[in-house]
Amino acid sequence: MQKVNDFKWKKGMTVSELVEGYTSIGFQSVEISKSADIILKMKKSGAKTFLTFTANMVTSGLRGFFSQIIKYRIPDVIVTAVGSIEEDIMKSMGEDFMLGQQKPDDIELYEKGMNRVGNLFIKNESYEKFEDKITFMLKKLYEKKKVWAVSEMIHEFGLMLNDEDSILYQASRNNIPIFCPAITDGALGFHLFMFQSEHPDFNVDVVKDFSNSLFSVTHDDKKGLIAVGGGVSKHYALLSCLLNGGIDYAVYITMSKSESGSLSGATTDEAKSWGKIKDDSDASTVVGEATVVFPLIMIKVLETLENEGLLK
Amino acid sequence: MQKVNDFKWKKGMTVSELVEGYTSIGFQSVEISKSADIILKMKKSGAKTFLTFTANMVTSGLRGFFSQIIKYRIPDVIVTAVGSIEEDIMKSMGEDFMLGQQKPDDIELYEKGMNRVGNLFIKNESYEKFEDKITFMLKKLYEKKKVWAVSEMIHEFGLMLNDEDSILYQASRNNIPIFCPAITDGALGFHLFMFQSEHPDFNVDVVKDFSNSLFSVTHDDKKGLIAVGGGVSKHYALLSCLLNGGIDYAVYITMSKSESGSLSGATTDEAKSWGKIKDDSDASTVVGEATVVFPLIMIKVLETLENEGLLK
Amino acid sequence: MQKVNDFKWKKGMTVSELVEGYTSIGFQSVEISKSADIILKMKKSGAKTFLTFTANMVTSGLRGFFSQIIKYRIPDVIVTAVGSIEEDIMKSMGEDFMLGQQKPDDIELYEKGMNRVGNLFIKNESYEKFEDKITFMLKKLYEKKKVWAVSEMIHEFGLMLNDEDSILYQASRNNIPIFCPAITDGALGFHLFMFQSEHPDFNVDVVKDFSNSLFSVTHDDKKGLIAVGGGVSKHYALLSCLLNGGIDYAVYITMSKSESGSLSGATTDEAKSWGKIKDDSDASTVVGEATVVFPLIMIKVLETLENEGLLK
Amino acid sequence: MQKVNDFKWKKGMTVSELVEGYTSIGFQSVEISKSADIILKMKKSGAKTFLTFTANMVTSGLRGFFSQIIKYRIPDVIVTAVGSIEEDIMKSMGEDFMLGQQKPDDIELYEKGMNRVGNLFIKNESYEKFEDKITFMLKKLYEKKKVWAVSEMIHEFGLMLNDEDSILYQASRNNIPIFCPAITDGALGFHLFMFQSEHPDFNVDVVKDFSNSLFSVTHDDKKGLIAVGGGVSKHYALLSCLLNGGIDYAVYITMSKSESGSLSGATTDEAKSWGKIKDDSDASTVVGEATVVFPLIMIKVLETLENEGLLK
Repeated sequence: MQKVNDFKWKKGMTVSELVEGYTSIGFQSVEISKSADIILKMKKSGAKTFLTFTANMVTSGLRGFFSQIIKYRIPDVIVTAVGSIEEDIMKSMGEDFMLGQQKPDDIELYEKGMNRVGNLFIKNESYEKFEDKITFMLKKLYEKKKVWAVSEMIHEFGLMLNDEDSILYQASRNNIPIFCPAITDGALGFHLFMFQSEHPDFNVDVVKDFSNSLFSVTHDDKKGLIAVGGGVSKHYALLSCLLNGGIDYAVYITMSKSESGSLSGATTDEAKSWGKIKDDSDASTVVGEATVVFPLIMIKVLETLENEGLLK
Repeated sequence: MQKVNDFKWKKGMTVSELVEGYTSIGFQSVEISKSADIILKMKKSGAKTFLTFTANMVTSGLRGFFSQIIKYRIPDVIVTAVGSIEEDIMKSMGEDFMLGQQKPDDIELYEKGMNRVGNLFIKNESYEKFEDKITFMLKKLYEKKKVWAVSEMIHEFGLMLNDEDSILYQASRNNIPIFCPAITDGALGFHLFMFQSEHPDFNVDVVKDFSNSLFSVTHDDKKGLIAVGGGVSKHYALLSCLLNGGIDYAVYITMSKSESGSLSGATTDEAKSWGKIKDDSDASTVVGEATVVFPLIMIKVLETLENEGLLK
Repeated sequence: MQKVNDFKWKKGMTVSELVEGYTSIGFQSVEISKSADIILKMKKSGAKTFLTFTANMVTSGLRGFFSQIIKYRIPDVIVTAVGSIEEDIMKSMGEDFMLGQQKPDDIELYEKGMNRVGNLFIKNESYEKFEDKITFMLKKLYEKKKVWAVSEMIHEFGLMLNDEDSILYQASRNNIPIFCPAITDGALGFHLFMFQSEHPDFNVDVVKDFSNSLFSVTHDDKKGLIAVGGGVSKHYALLSCLLNGGIDYAVYITMSKSESGSLSGATTDEAKSWGKIKDDSDASTVVGEATVVFPLIMIKVLETLENEGLLK
Repeated sequence: MQKVNDFKWKKGMTVSELVEGYTSIGFQSVEISKSADIILKMKKSGAKTFLTFTANMVTSGLRGFFSQIIKYRIPDVIVTAVGSIEEDIMKSMGEDFMLGQQKPDDIELYEKGMNRVGNLFIKNESYEKFEDKITFMLKKLYEKKKVWAVSEMIHEFGLMLNDEDSILYQASRNNIPIFCPAITDGALGFHLFMFQSEHPDFNVDVVKDFSNSLFSVTHDDKKGLIAVGGGVSKHYALLSCLLNGGIDYAVYITMSKSESGSLSGATTDEAKSWGKIKDDSDASTVVGEATVVFPLIMIKVLETLENEGLLK
């Protein structure tokens, strides 16, 4: 067992130095430094790396950080919610999201045409602009073919964007697939339905995309998972890995409680029983809010890879 | 404002009496009695009622209670995760799920072929039997037509079951649609993919099902939502209601925290800003674990409806 | 391992029947039925039973329920916070506490002279009336002797009250000591200070009360702990038991997370490492809000004892 | 309202730069940057600053960081639990605390003489050495006088230590009082009792210490509170401020939920209704684990004060 050491601040302390300090502080801070170590092992071992995140990450200012991580090809496969697709496109069109109080007057917000996600706000207007854009993009896709697997559709969206801070843009340019198992669970679902009403032979193939996800890795690959939040995205990545023999490295970031049997709160321990995480895997669960925790972990990873000449 | 009253036990106290006592105790107990009142208003006003729940509810012993509630036609529309479909079918085949400790040895469980969800366990064997059953059922469907909207497919599954305690059985017999926006996010996804491999013209239409969900209620209907847990199921129901003018009554049960901006932890307050819940709606959020909280709320509802001759 | 059973509602269902149903539902509901079983074992084995609770329980309508449990002599020793003493006395003077929304306008409340505890409210006026009462009671005590151990002082307070629903009243009449390790951490602290200013030889002896607590049980006694919430009260009870060889039976009710290393969130597992709970003990931790959970557990206990003729 | 900005990593990023980035990310990260700003205002306005923390902070490696903050005289008054006093003394004697897994075998730990606090471990041996030390120190105190207010006793302990990383050492040398309202709620309580048994005129005066706390600030002082975790320490500081007209600036760090009416989970909003925080105060609540969050906030504070020549 390791000793607990007295942590001390030094002037000009870097994020890397702080995360190194976390190593011997205890509680959740030590899980952060452990998570950085596991992701470094993941990358150095050449493991195929799944990154999953919930849509509120894209609502937040971490959207640019995710696109940066994708640009550096940290993930090989991405799974996310449809809200991420919608909001990344809005932001790439220059729409501003706003930041306010945690507990504002929600009825007033509604009357002002503001939609709240925690302490972040999206204007109705941004949804309206999204409608025009997505309809245009669907037309372009329809010209090519009628039935699209979800990840192929998202790949085309990314190619049509022109914003270096966009998650879709970076994923498409770096040939990293984005899976989105519940593609109709958002405004996009409505626009797909409207488009299909006018073009009855247009369709989205989720079963085909299951095989795309399944074959995005092989049984022989080492596999890693970085799950930011829970939900369908995390579960879908676990499933692809399970059907390919399980995961070797896993890092979970969650605010949920494991006591309710929810997947969001399930730790890397529970995943072992599913064969989802191999019994000899390196795994950590950080209980904390992702906008705070994820940059801490990933900056340590990026700095280390950069210092070792491994960041391309 | 209401007074806090000293709660007292009386011999033979019923659940209804306890929930009435909760009315003047405070904290979360008062949210439980308020939730029962809102659901009663929902039903008496003739509101179209959405019931959403996560798959772990079906893993638990509440599965029979959900089927009972459906039998009494409390919900008009159901939205759930694919795990619910899979596990309801397993249970209707007589497969037993087991109950153990909260923090068992997960590697040992894996070696024994047991999969853990919180303190509940599912045998690998149950998944194998499910495979045979679902393949048989998909063949039957394929004989009828090639492309299936998700809720239509689930309706057919329900008709092929023969278990009064089954959620699918009761929903199908009572013509209550079950939506499942992420239909491929589970073992069923794999079986659909295998079936499509052999029958390339077989497909699942999620865009079509979006319109089924959208048209399951109208703008003129009063609308209610009972959301047990969060995730895609809750969001999808909110979306259908939003596109039809918003919700009139809402009850959320959650263990998640609202501070992370996650949908699972979002309260009925946040939903107001989305126009998801109408500004004059009756809404409550209970912070608690659903296997404890949901029976308390619903037994009070059932007893009251029964006493007033409204339970059919 | 036990099987998960389909739970079903029956008309007129009692709380006892619900808690029996919880036995095979899973997640936190099974912890509730297990907790009732452990408390029954505690009482039937003749274990000395510690009951600890936080002050917000007395703010809530559970205050009458706690006094009822004390009347039936379920606990042998009580440990609580000073707020419990203050608010129990206010209520016994007929002061009403109010119940409102979870997230009201706190500045408006302040201007109205209302103090908020979650969704419960206490008037400034109630504190003013408390001041008169406590000053009167301290004078009476001072006439008897100058230096008081905390639990002896609280015992005298209880004897001066005349309210069957009072916790102090029932504890004093049934000779059940109430310990309060942080006696100055509230309005009472201020009144003790004012009284001492005028009567410099008046004092409160917390070190003496430590020995009262220590000798409230013996090494040979079987010992049980029912901890409603965390904090100093829970810790102090654990300490008394630890110094007497550890605990045999323990039930914890908490909403806190164990991941932060806080005592409030510490489970009965962690307590084993402290020898606080003996390694062969029967222990359960329920994650849930106490106003919901505690009545469920205790009603099952009371009904069972009543049915077996063990409730006196 | 402020815009959400795309956060980006730059090589060699400092903690200060990260916390500045948090300003426009959203959710809890923005609360961290806001908290640093509030503490800076607190210090620059000359507000008397209360720092409260739970004992597990001293168990962790943050103990050295707290002593550093005290050395820089960030707090003017400290309130903490008795465990903090005990463990700070153990560490100053050179006792090592260990770091292990979150969910180890607790019975095995007990048999090895290891006591667990989350993922940190304290040896029985450390408690034994503490006993010798504290008995020696109490003798020294007793030679001076017989009755000690708690904070005066702790001040003397600090003067007898010789460890720059010690919280008590730095507090004593910088004349910063440490209050500990539940002084008997730990091993120290037992040693005080043993000492009193042999020296019956020895006593600890908690009522006197209430006035020391009350007069540690005045009505005219601006007042600030940094509460790391909840419990008695937080409440006692709030009380001293309330009785002096309320608080001007407040920062709370907590993992608890506000929905249970617990003080630990109470936000700065609730405190407004108590007049505890003045209605025009600057206040923030960070939901997160303190070993992660507290260094982020305080490093930003220290760097800024240092850069502005305000750190002495």
